[in-house]
Amino acid sequence: MRRIRLIIEYDGINYVGWQTQPNGVAIQEKIEQAILHITGQHVALHGSGRTDSGVHARAQVAHFDTDARMDAGKFAVALNTRLPSDIRILFSEECASDFHARFSAKEKQYRYTLQIGEHARVETRNTALHLHSAPDFAKMQRAAQSIIGTHDFAAFMAAGSKVENTTRSIYASEWTQIDNYWYYNVRGSGFLYNMVRILVGTMLDIGRGYLPENAMETALATRNRNNAGATAPAHGLCLMRVVYDSEE
Amino acid sequence: MRRIRLIIEYDGINYVGWQTQPNGVAIQEKIEQAILHITGQHVALHGSGRTDSGVHARAQVAHFDTDARMDAGKFAVALNTRLPSDIRILFSEECASDFHARFSAKEKQYRYTLQIGEHARVETRNTALHLHSAPDFAKMQRAAQSIIGTHDFAAFMAAGSKVENTTRSIYASEWTQIDNYWYYNVRGSGFLYNMVRILVGTMLDIGRGYLPENAMETALATRNRNNAGATAPAHGLCLMRVVYDSEE
Repeated sequence: MRRIRLIIEYDGINYVGWQTQPNGVAIQEKIEQAILHITGQHVALHGSGRTDSGVHARAQVAHFDTDARMDAGKFAVALNTRLPSDIRILFSEECASDFHARFSAKEKQYRYTLQIGEHARVETRNTALHLHSAPDFAKMQRAAQSIIGTHDFAAFMAAGSKVENTTRSIYASEWTQIDNYWYYNVRGSGFLYNMVRILVGTMLDIGRGYLPENAMETALATRNRNNAGATAPAHGLCLMRVVYDSEE
Repeated sequence: MRRIRLIIEYDGINYVGWQTQPNGVAIQEKIEQAILHITGQHVALHGSGRTDSGVHARAQVAHFDTDARMDAGKFAVALNTRLPSDIRILFSEECASDFHARFSAKEKQYRYTLQIGEHARVETRNTALHLHSAPDFAKMQRAAQSIIGTHDFAAFMAAGSKVENTTRSIYASEWTQIDNYWYYNVRGSGFLYNMVRILVGTMLDIGRGYLPENAMETALATRNRNNAGATAPAHGLCLMRVVYDSEE
Protein backbone atom coordinates (compact mmCIF):
# COMPACT_ATOMS: atom_id res chain seq x y z
CA MET A 1 0.00 0.00 0.00
CA ARG A 2 1.36 3.40 -0.94
CA ARG A 3 0.13 6.88 -0.08
CA ILE A 4 -0.20 9.27 -3.03
CA ARG A 5 -0.32 13.05 -2.70
CA LEU A 6 -2.14 15.15 -5.28
CA ILE A 7 -2.01 18.88 -5.99
CA ILE A 8 -5.34 19.95 -7.46
CA GLU A 9 -6.63 23.03 -9.25
CA TYR A 10 -10.37 23.63 -9.66
CA ASP A 11 -13.11 26.06 -10.53
CA GLY A 12 -15.69 25.64 -7.77
CA ILE A 13 -18.61 27.26 -9.61
CA ASN A 14 -20.20 24.04 -10.82
CA TYR A 15 -19.78 22.02 -7.61
CA VAL A 16 -21.36 21.81 -4.16
CA GLY A 17 -17.85 22.23 -2.78
CA TRP A 18 -14.87 20.01 -2.04
CA GLN A 19 -16.67 17.55 0.21
CA THR A 20 -19.20 15.00 -0.97
CA GLN A 21 -22.76 16.11 -0.17
CA PRO A 22 -26.17 14.55 -0.73
CA ASN A 23 -27.42 17.50 -2.83
CA GLY A 24 -25.04 17.75 -5.76
CA VAL A 25 -21.68 16.88 -7.24
CA ALA A 26 -18.55 17.48 -5.17
CA ILE A 27 -14.95 17.81 -6.31
CA GLN A 28 -13.75 15.09 -3.93
CA GLU A 29 -16.33 12.73 -5.44
CA LYS A 30 -15.28 13.46 -9.03
CA ILE A 31 -11.66 12.67 -8.20
CA GLU A 32 -12.54 9.52 -6.24
CA GLN A 33 -14.53 8.34 -9.29
CA ALA A 34 -11.56 9.03 -11.54
CA ILE A 35 -9.26 7.06 -9.19
CA LEU A 36 -11.77 4.18 -9.23
CA HIS A 37 -11.74 4.24 -13.02
CA ILE A 38 -7.95 4.22 -13.24
CA THR A 39 -7.13 1.77 -10.43
CA GLY A 40 -10.33 -0.28 -10.00
CA GLN A 41 -10.25 0.65 -6.30
CA HIS A 42 -12.68 2.60 -4.16
CA VAL A 43 -10.50 4.98 -2.16
CA ALA A 44 -11.16 7.74 0.36
CA LEU A 45 -9.54 10.97 -0.79
CA HIS A 46 -8.54 13.26 2.09
CA GLY A 47 -8.26 16.96 1.34
CA SER A 48 -6.38 19.61 3.31
CA GLY A 49 -9.80 21.02 4.17
CA ARG A 50 -13.19 21.68 2.67
CA THR A 51 -13.88 24.49 0.31
CA ASP A 52 -17.47 25.71 -0.04
CA SER A 53 -19.59 25.64 -3.15
CA GLY A 54 -18.24 28.27 -5.53
CA VAL A 55 -14.81 28.55 -3.87
CA HIS A 56 -11.85 27.83 -6.15
CA ALA A 57 -8.44 26.26 -5.57
CA ARG A 58 -5.16 26.93 -7.29
CA ALA A 59 -3.40 24.23 -5.28
CA GLN A 60 -5.58 22.12 -3.02
CA VAL A 61 -3.69 19.15 -1.54
CA ALA A 62 -5.17 15.69 -0.98
CA HIS A 63 -3.95 12.14 -0.36
CA PHE A 64 -5.21 8.59 -0.82
CA ASP A 65 -3.86 5.07 -0.33
CA THR A 66 -3.65 2.59 -3.14
CA ASP A 67 -2.27 -0.81 -4.19
CA ALA A 68 -2.11 0.26 -7.82
CA ARG A 69 1.34 -0.24 -9.33
CA MET A 70 1.25 2.82 -11.53
CA ASP A 71 4.23 5.16 -11.31
CA ALA A 72 3.11 7.76 -8.71
CA GLY A 73 4.01 10.66 -10.99
CA LYS A 74 1.74 9.30 -13.71
CA PHE A 75 -1.46 9.61 -11.67
CA ALA A 76 -1.81 13.28 -12.63
CA VAL A 77 -1.97 12.66 -16.37
CA ALA A 78 -4.06 9.50 -16.00
CA LEU A 79 -6.64 11.10 -13.71
CA ASN A 80 -6.89 14.20 -15.90
CA THR A 81 -8.07 12.04 -18.80
CA ARG A 82 -11.06 11.09 -16.60
CA LEU A 83 -11.78 14.50 -15.04
CA PRO A 84 -13.78 17.44 -16.41
CA SER A 85 -11.72 20.43 -17.55
CA ASP A 86 -12.66 22.46 -14.46
CA ILE A 87 -10.71 20.04 -12.23
CA ARG A 88 -7.00 19.39 -12.96
CA ILE A 89 -4.46 17.32 -11.08
CA LEU A 90 -1.32 19.44 -11.41
CA PHE A 91 1.07 17.05 -9.70
CA SER A 92 1.13 13.59 -8.13
CA GLU A 93 3.81 11.85 -6.07
CA GLU A 94 4.28 9.17 -3.46
CA CYS A 95 4.47 10.59 0.06
CA ALA A 96 5.30 9.25 3.52
CA SER A 97 2.68 6.88 4.92
CA ASP A 98 2.18 9.20 7.90
CA PHE A 99 1.58 12.27 5.74
CA HIS A 100 -1.98 13.56 6.11
CA ALA A 101 -3.26 16.31 3.81
CA ARG A 102 -5.30 17.84 6.63
CA PHE A 103 -3.45 17.07 9.86
CA SER A 104 0.07 17.62 8.51
CA ALA A 105 -0.80 21.07 7.08
CA LYS A 106 1.16 23.86 8.76
CA GLU A 107 -0.11 26.86 6.85
CA LYS A 108 -2.74 27.84 4.32
CA GLN A 109 -2.82 30.71 1.88
CA TYR A 110 -6.01 32.19 0.45
CA ARG A 111 -6.72 35.00 -1.98
CA TYR A 112 -9.95 36.98 -2.34
CA THR A 113 -10.44 39.03 -5.51
CA LEU A 114 -12.52 42.15 -6.07
CA GLN A 115 -13.22 43.73 -9.44
CA ILE A 116 -14.06 47.42 -9.23
CA GLY A 117 -15.95 49.01 -12.11
CA GLU A 118 -19.29 49.89 -13.62
CA HIS A 119 -19.77 46.46 -15.22
CA ALA A 120 -18.86 42.95 -14.04
CA ARG A 121 -16.14 41.82 -16.46
CA VAL A 122 -16.86 38.62 -18.37
CA GLU A 123 -13.42 37.10 -17.88
CA THR A 124 -13.55 37.23 -14.08
CA ARG A 125 -17.30 36.85 -13.54
CA ASN A 126 -16.81 33.56 -11.66
CA THR A 127 -13.59 34.43 -9.83
CA ALA A 128 -13.97 38.00 -8.55
CA LEU A 129 -16.61 39.85 -6.54
CA HIS A 130 -17.76 42.80 -8.62
CA LEU A 131 -18.21 46.17 -6.90
CA HIS A 132 -19.59 49.18 -8.74
CA SER A 133 -17.50 51.65 -6.79
CA ALA A 134 -14.29 51.46 -4.83
CA PRO A 135 -14.34 51.20 -1.04
CA ASP A 136 -11.67 53.07 0.95
CA PHE A 137 -8.50 51.10 0.21
CA ALA A 138 -6.44 52.58 3.06
CA LYS A 139 -9.09 51.70 5.66
CA MET A 140 -9.27 48.12 4.37
CA GLN A 141 -5.49 47.84 4.42
CA ARG A 142 -5.31 48.99 8.04
CA ALA A 143 -8.10 46.55 8.95
CA ALA A 144 -6.24 43.71 7.20
CA GLN A 145 -3.08 44.44 9.12
CA SER A 146 -4.86 44.57 12.47
CA ILE A 147 -5.44 40.79 12.49
CA ILE A 148 -1.81 39.73 12.02
CA GLY A 149 -0.66 37.63 14.98
CA THR A 150 -2.35 35.02 17.16
CA HIS A 151 -5.95 35.79 18.10
CA ASP A 152 -9.23 34.16 19.01
CA PHE A 153 -11.21 34.41 15.77
CA ALA A 154 -14.54 33.18 17.21
CA ALA A 155 -16.30 36.27 15.79
CA PHE A 156 -15.14 35.29 12.29
CA MET A 157 -16.63 31.81 12.27
CA ALA A 158 -19.94 30.82 10.64
CA ALA A 159 -22.72 30.34 13.18
CA GLY A 160 -23.34 26.65 13.86
CA SER A 161 -19.70 25.62 13.43
CA LYS A 162 -18.67 23.32 16.28
CA VAL A 163 -14.91 23.90 16.47
CA GLU A 164 -13.84 24.39 20.09
CA ASN A 165 -10.45 25.99 19.72
CA THR A 166 -10.99 29.17 17.71
CA THR A 167 -7.48 30.57 18.15
CA ARG A 168 -5.51 30.92 14.93
CA SER A 169 -2.28 32.60 13.87
CA ILE A 170 -2.23 34.95 10.90
CA TYR A 171 1.22 35.40 9.33
CA ALA A 172 0.34 37.83 6.54
CA SER A 173 -2.81 39.78 5.69
CA GLU A 174 -2.61 42.37 2.95
CA TRP A 175 -4.53 44.00 0.10
CA THR A 176 -2.83 44.73 -3.22
CA GLN A 177 -4.19 46.54 -6.25
CA ILE A 178 -3.53 45.83 -9.92
CA ASP A 179 -5.55 48.09 -12.21
CA ASN A 180 -9.20 47.57 -11.28
CA TYR A 181 -8.59 44.35 -9.38
CA TRP A 182 -8.00 44.27 -5.65
CA TYR A 183 -6.50 41.13 -4.10
CA TYR A 184 -6.62 40.19 -0.45
CA ASN A 185 -3.84 37.71 0.35
CA VAL A 186 -3.88 36.00 3.71
CA ARG A 187 -1.61 33.33 5.19
CA GLY A 188 -2.26 31.59 8.47
CA SER A 189 -1.89 28.47 10.59
CA GLY A 190 -5.44 27.54 9.68
CA PHE A 191 -8.84 29.07 9.13
CA LEU A 192 -12.23 28.55 10.75
CA TYR A 193 -15.34 27.79 8.71
CA ASN A 194 -16.08 30.81 6.46
CA MET A 195 -13.34 32.80 8.23
CA VAL A 196 -11.73 34.35 5.16
CA ARG A 197 -15.10 35.30 3.69
CA ILE A 198 -16.20 36.93 6.98
CA LEU A 199 -12.86 38.76 7.26
CA VAL A 200 -13.36 40.10 3.71
CA GLY A 201 -17.00 40.99 4.37
CA THR A 202 -16.00 42.89 7.50
CA MET A 203 -13.22 44.76 5.70
CA LEU A 204 -15.65 45.66 2.89
CA ASP A 205 -18.09 47.06 5.45
CA ILE A 206 -15.24 49.08 6.98
CA GLY A 207 -14.12 50.28 3.54
CA ARG A 208 -17.65 51.40 2.68
CA GLY A 209 -18.17 53.12 6.02
CA TYR A 210 -20.85 50.72 7.29
CA LEU A 211 -18.66 49.64 10.18
CA PRO A 212 -16.17 51.74 12.21
CA GLU A 213 -12.49 51.53 11.36
CA ASN A 214 -11.73 49.47 14.47
CA ALA A 215 -14.46 46.89 13.81
CA MET A 216 -11.92 44.07 13.32
CA GLU A 217 -10.37 44.71 16.75
CA THR A 218 -13.83 44.98 18.36
CA ALA A 219 -14.95 41.68 16.82
CA LEU A 220 -11.73 39.96 17.95
CA ALA A 221 -12.04 41.34 21.50
CA THR A 222 -15.73 40.53 21.94
CA ARG A 223 -15.62 37.15 20.12
CA ASN A 224 -19.10 38.07 18.89
CA ARG A 225 -20.12 37.19 15.31
CA ASN A 226 -22.58 40.11 15.36
CA ASN A 227 -19.70 42.56 15.59
CA ALA A 228 -18.17 41.27 12.35
CA GLY A 229 -19.55 42.02 8.88
CA ALA A 230 -21.38 39.99 6.29
CA THR A 231 -19.95 36.81 4.75
CA ALA A 232 -18.49 37.79 1.37
CA PRO A 233 -19.68 35.69 -1.61
CA ALA A 234 -17.89 32.39 -2.22
CA HIS A 235 -16.84 32.90 -5.84
CA GLY A 236 -14.19 35.56 -5.04
CA LEU A 237 -12.26 33.13 -2.84
CA CYS A 238 -9.42 30.86 -3.91
CA LEU A 239 -7.25 28.44 -1.89
CA MET A 240 -3.80 29.29 -3.20
CA ARG A 241 -1.43 27.00 -1.31
CA VAL A 242 -1.12 24.55 1.56
CA VAL A 243 2.28 24.39 3.25
CA TYR A 244 3.71 21.28 4.96
CA ASP A 245 6.79 20.74 7.10
CA SER A 246 8.73 19.09 4.32
CA GLU A 247 8.49 22.23 2.22
CA GLU A 248 9.83 24.57 4.90
CA MET B 1 -34.49 57.84 -34.70
CA ARG B 2 -31.04 57.66 -33.16
CA ARG B 3 -28.13 55.32 -33.80
CA ILE B 4 -26.58 53.73 -30.70
CA ARG B 5 -23.09 52.21 -30.62
CA LEU B 6 -22.28 49.44 -28.16
CA ILE B 7 -18.94 48.03 -27.02
CA ILE B 8 -19.42 44.40 -26.04
CA GLU B 9 -17.37 41.83 -24.15
CA TYR B 10 -18.24 38.13 -24.33
CA ASP B 11 -17.15 34.59 -23.67
CA GLY B 12 -17.99 32.70 -26.87
CA ILE B 13 -17.88 29.20 -25.40
CA ASN B 14 -21.63 28.83 -24.87
CA TYR B 15 -22.75 30.37 -28.18
CA VAL B 16 -22.90 29.42 -31.85
CA GLY B 17 -21.01 32.64 -32.52
CA TRP B 18 -21.85 36.30 -33.00
CA GLN B 19 -24.34 35.84 -35.80
CA THR B 20 -27.81 34.36 -35.38
CA GLN B 21 -27.95 30.77 -36.66
CA PRO B 22 -30.71 28.18 -36.88
CA ASN B 23 -28.83 25.67 -34.70
CA GLY B 24 -28.25 27.40 -31.39
CA VAL B 25 -28.07 30.64 -29.46
CA ALA B 26 -26.03 33.53 -30.88
CA ILE B 27 -24.62 36.56 -29.09
CA GLN B 28 -26.28 38.99 -31.54
CA GLU B 29 -29.64 37.35 -30.80
CA LYS B 30 -29.21 37.59 -27.01
CA ILE B 31 -28.49 41.31 -27.27
CA GLU B 32 -31.35 41.93 -29.71
CA GLN B 33 -33.68 40.21 -27.22
CA ALA B 34 -32.37 42.40 -24.41
CA ILE B 35 -32.94 45.53 -26.55
CA LEU B 36 -36.48 44.34 -27.27
CA HIS B 37 -37.07 43.88 -23.58
CA ILE B 38 -35.77 47.34 -22.68
CA THR B 39 -37.25 49.36 -25.57
CA GLY B 40 -40.18 47.26 -26.79
CA GLN B 41 -38.68 47.45 -30.28
CA HIS B 42 -37.38 44.72 -32.57
CA VAL B 43 -34.06 46.04 -33.87
CA ALA B 44 -31.33 44.69 -36.12
CA LEU B 45 -27.99 44.78 -34.34
CA HIS B 46 -25.02 45.18 -36.73
CA GLY B 47 -21.67 43.91 -35.48
CA SER B 48 -18.21 44.85 -36.78
CA GLY B 49 -17.99 41.29 -38.08
CA ARG B 50 -18.87 37.75 -37.11
CA THR B 51 -16.97 35.77 -34.59
CA ASP B 52 -17.20 31.98 -34.74
CA SER B 53 -18.58 29.69 -32.09
CA GLY B 54 -16.11 29.63 -29.19
CA VAL B 55 -14.33 32.86 -30.19
CA HIS B 56 -14.32 35.58 -27.52
CA ALA B 57 -14.44 39.36 -27.67
CA ARG B 58 -12.91 41.90 -25.35
CA ALA B 59 -14.43 44.81 -27.31
CA GLN B 60 -16.74 43.88 -30.16
CA VAL B 61 -18.51 46.93 -31.63
CA ALA B 62 -22.11 46.96 -32.84
CA HIS B 63 -24.84 49.50 -33.64
CA PHE B 64 -28.64 49.67 -33.84
CA ASP B 65 -31.28 52.32 -34.47
CA THR B 66 -33.98 53.11 -31.96
CA ASP B 67 -36.77 55.56 -31.09
CA ALA B 68 -36.37 54.85 -27.40
CA ARG B 69 -35.82 58.03 -25.39
CA MET B 70 -33.45 56.51 -22.88
CA ASP B 71 -30.18 58.38 -22.31
CA ALA B 72 -27.76 56.67 -24.74
CA GLY B 73 -25.17 56.12 -22.02
CA LYS B 74 -27.72 54.22 -19.92
CA PHE B 75 -28.23 51.42 -22.45
CA ALA B 76 -25.16 49.59 -21.15
CA VAL B 77 -26.45 49.23 -17.60
CA ALA B 78 -30.04 48.57 -18.70
CA LEU B 79 -29.08 45.85 -21.19
CA ASN B 80 -26.72 44.18 -18.73
CA THR B 81 -29.63 43.59 -16.36
CA ARG B 82 -31.18 41.47 -19.15
CA LEU B 83 -28.05 39.70 -20.39
CA PRO B 84 -26.33 36.57 -19.05
CA SER B 85 -23.05 37.18 -17.22
CA ASP B 86 -20.97 35.91 -20.18
CA ILE B 87 -22.10 38.88 -22.30
CA ARG B 88 -21.49 42.43 -21.01
CA ILE B 89 -22.15 45.78 -22.65
CA LEU B 90 -19.12 47.81 -21.53
CA PHE B 91 -20.16 51.12 -23.06
CA SER B 92 -23.04 52.69 -24.99
CA GLU B 93 -23.30 56.05 -26.73
CA GLU B 94 -25.14 57.83 -29.51
CA CYS B 95 -23.14 57.88 -32.74
CA ALA B 96 -23.46 59.57 -36.14
CA SER B 97 -26.33 58.26 -38.27
CA ASP B 98 -23.86 57.26 -40.99
CA PHE B 99 -21.65 55.27 -38.62
CA HIS B 100 -21.68 51.55 -39.45
CA ALA B 101 -20.01 49.06 -37.11
CA ARG B 102 -18.87 46.93 -40.04
CA PHE B 103 -18.33 49.29 -42.96
CA SER B 104 -16.77 52.14 -40.96
CA ALA B 105 -14.19 49.87 -39.31
CA LYS B 106 -10.62 50.77 -40.25
CA GLU B 107 -8.68 48.24 -38.26
CA LYS B 108 -9.18 45.16 -36.13
CA GLN B 109 -6.99 43.69 -33.45
CA TYR B 110 -7.05 40.04 -32.44
CA ARG B 111 -5.17 38.02 -29.85
CA TYR B 112 -4.58 34.27 -29.83
CA THR B 113 -3.44 32.65 -26.57
CA LEU B 114 -1.43 29.46 -26.03
CA GLN B 115 -0.84 27.82 -22.67
CA ILE B 116 2.28 25.66 -22.58
CA GLY B 117 2.55 23.00 -19.91
CA GLU B 118 1.90 19.43 -18.92
CA HIS B 119 -1.71 20.10 -17.85
CA ALA B 120 -4.38 22.43 -19.26
CA ARG B 121 -4.87 25.06 -16.55
CA VAL B 122 -8.39 25.40 -15.18
CA GLU B 123 -8.44 29.19 -15.24
CA THR B 124 -7.71 29.47 -18.97
CA ARG B 125 -9.32 26.25 -20.19
CA ASN B 126 -11.82 28.19 -22.31
CA THR B 127 -9.55 31.02 -23.46
CA ALA B 128 -6.19 29.43 -24.35
CA LEU B 129 -5.09 26.56 -26.56
CA HIS B 130 -3.19 24.11 -24.38
CA LEU B 131 0.06 22.63 -25.74
CA HIS B 132 1.99 19.98 -23.83
CA SER B 133 5.35 21.19 -25.07
CA ALA B 134 6.68 24.44 -26.43
CA PRO B 135 7.10 24.93 -30.19
CA ASP B 136 10.13 26.90 -31.45
CA PHE B 137 9.32 30.46 -30.41
CA ALA B 138 11.92 32.12 -32.65
CA LYS B 139 10.62 30.34 -35.76
CA MET B 140 7.06 31.39 -34.95
CA GLN B 141 8.16 34.97 -34.36
CA ARG B 142 9.93 35.13 -37.73
CA ALA B 143 6.85 33.63 -39.41
CA ALA B 144 4.60 36.21 -37.71
CA GLN B 145 6.74 39.04 -38.94
CA SER B 146 6.82 37.77 -42.52
CA ILE B 147 3.16 38.70 -43.08
CA ILE B 148 3.43 42.36 -42.09
CA GLY B 149 2.40 44.57 -45.02
CA THR B 150 -0.19 44.29 -47.77
CA HIS B 151 -0.62 40.80 -49.24
CA ASP B 152 -3.14 38.55 -50.90
CA PHE B 153 -4.19 36.24 -48.05
CA ALA B 154 -6.28 33.85 -50.19
CA ALA B 155 -4.31 30.88 -48.76
CA PHE B 156 -5.41 31.89 -45.24
CA MET B 157 -9.15 31.86 -45.89
CA ALA B 158 -11.53 29.02 -45.00
CA ALA B 159 -12.55 26.93 -48.02
CA GLY B 160 -16.02 27.89 -49.22
CA SER B 161 -15.73 31.56 -48.29
CA LYS B 162 -16.96 33.74 -51.16
CA VAL B 163 -15.04 36.98 -50.60
CA GLU B 164 -13.57 38.19 -53.91
CA ASN B 165 -10.94 40.65 -52.76
CA THR B 166 -8.57 38.69 -50.54
CA THR B 167 -5.95 41.42 -50.15
CA ARG B 168 -5.48 42.70 -46.62
CA SER B 169 -2.95 44.89 -44.83
CA ILE B 170 -1.31 43.68 -41.63
CA TYR B 171 0.08 46.48 -39.45
CA ALA B 172 1.48 44.41 -36.60
CA SER B 173 1.98 40.68 -36.09
CA GLU B 174 3.95 39.53 -33.06
CA TRP B 175 4.24 36.81 -30.43
CA THR B 176 4.93 37.70 -26.81
CA GLN B 177 5.57 35.40 -23.87
CA ILE B 178 4.50 35.85 -20.25
CA ASP B 179 5.42 32.86 -18.11
CA ASN B 180 3.81 29.81 -19.71
CA TYR B 181 1.41 31.84 -21.84
CA TRP B 182 2.22 32.85 -25.41
CA TYR B 183 0.16 35.61 -27.02
CA TYR B 184 -0.10 36.30 -30.72
CA ASN B 185 -1.23 39.89 -31.31
CA VAL B 186 -2.22 40.90 -34.80
CA ARG B 187 -3.58 44.19 -36.14
CA GLY B 188 -4.83 44.66 -39.68
CA SER B 189 -7.19 46.45 -42.04
CA GLY B 190 -9.48 43.44 -41.89
CA PHE B 191 -9.40 39.67 -41.77
CA LEU B 192 -10.82 36.96 -44.02
CA TYR B 193 -13.00 34.16 -42.66
CA ASN B 194 -10.88 32.06 -40.23
CA MET B 195 -7.77 34.01 -41.25
CA VAL B 196 -6.30 34.53 -37.77
CA ARG B 197 -6.91 30.90 -36.83
CA ILE B 198 -5.23 29.66 -40.04
CA LEU B 199 -2.30 32.06 -39.51
CA VAL B 200 -1.88 30.66 -35.99
CA GLY B 201 -2.26 27.06 -37.16
CA THR B 202 0.40 27.62 -39.81
CA MET B 203 2.79 29.23 -37.34
CA LEU B 204 2.24 26.33 -34.93
CA ASP B 205 3.10 23.87 -37.69
CA ILE B 206 6.25 25.89 -38.44
CA GLY B 207 7.14 26.04 -34.74
CA ARG B 208 6.75 22.27 -34.40
CA GLY B 209 8.71 21.55 -37.55
CA TYR B 210 5.78 20.14 -39.54
CA LEU B 211 6.09 22.91 -42.11
CA PRO B 212 9.26 24.62 -43.41
CA GLU B 213 10.26 27.97 -41.94
CA ASN B 214 9.20 29.84 -45.09
CA ALA B 215 5.73 28.25 -45.23
CA MET B 216 3.98 31.58 -44.64
CA GLU B 217 5.70 33.16 -47.64
CA THR B 218 5.01 30.09 -49.81
CA ALA B 219 1.32 30.16 -48.89
CA LEU B 220 1.09 33.89 -49.62
CA ALA B 221 2.87 33.49 -52.98
CA THR B 222 0.87 30.48 -54.16
CA ARG B 223 -2.52 31.67 -52.74
CA ASN B 224 -3.14 27.97 -52.05
CA ARG B 225 -4.96 26.95 -48.84
CA ASN B 226 -3.14 23.60 -48.98
CA ASN B 227 0.18 25.32 -48.40
CA ALA B 228 -1.02 26.82 -45.11
CA GLY B 229 -1.44 24.87 -41.89
CA ALA B 230 -4.41 23.67 -39.92
CA THR B 231 -7.08 26.02 -38.53
CA ALA B 232 -6.25 26.57 -34.86
CA PRO B 233 -9.14 25.92 -32.42
CA ALA B 234 -11.62 28.76 -31.89
CA HIS B 235 -11.41 29.09 -28.11
CA GLY B 236 -7.88 30.58 -28.12
CA LEU B 237 -9.02 33.57 -30.21
CA CYS B 238 -10.27 36.92 -28.92
CA LEU B 239 -11.34 40.07 -30.81
CA MET B 240 -9.54 42.74 -28.81
CA ARG B 241 -10.47 46.01 -30.50
CA VAL B 242 -12.10 47.57 -33.56
CA VAL B 243 -10.71 50.94 -34.63
CA TYR B 244 -12.74 53.66 -36.41
CA ASP B 245 -11.72 56.95 -37.99
CA SER B 246 -13.03 59.01 -35.12
CA GLU B 247 -10.58 57.36 -32.75
CA GLU B 248 -7.50 57.98 -34.84
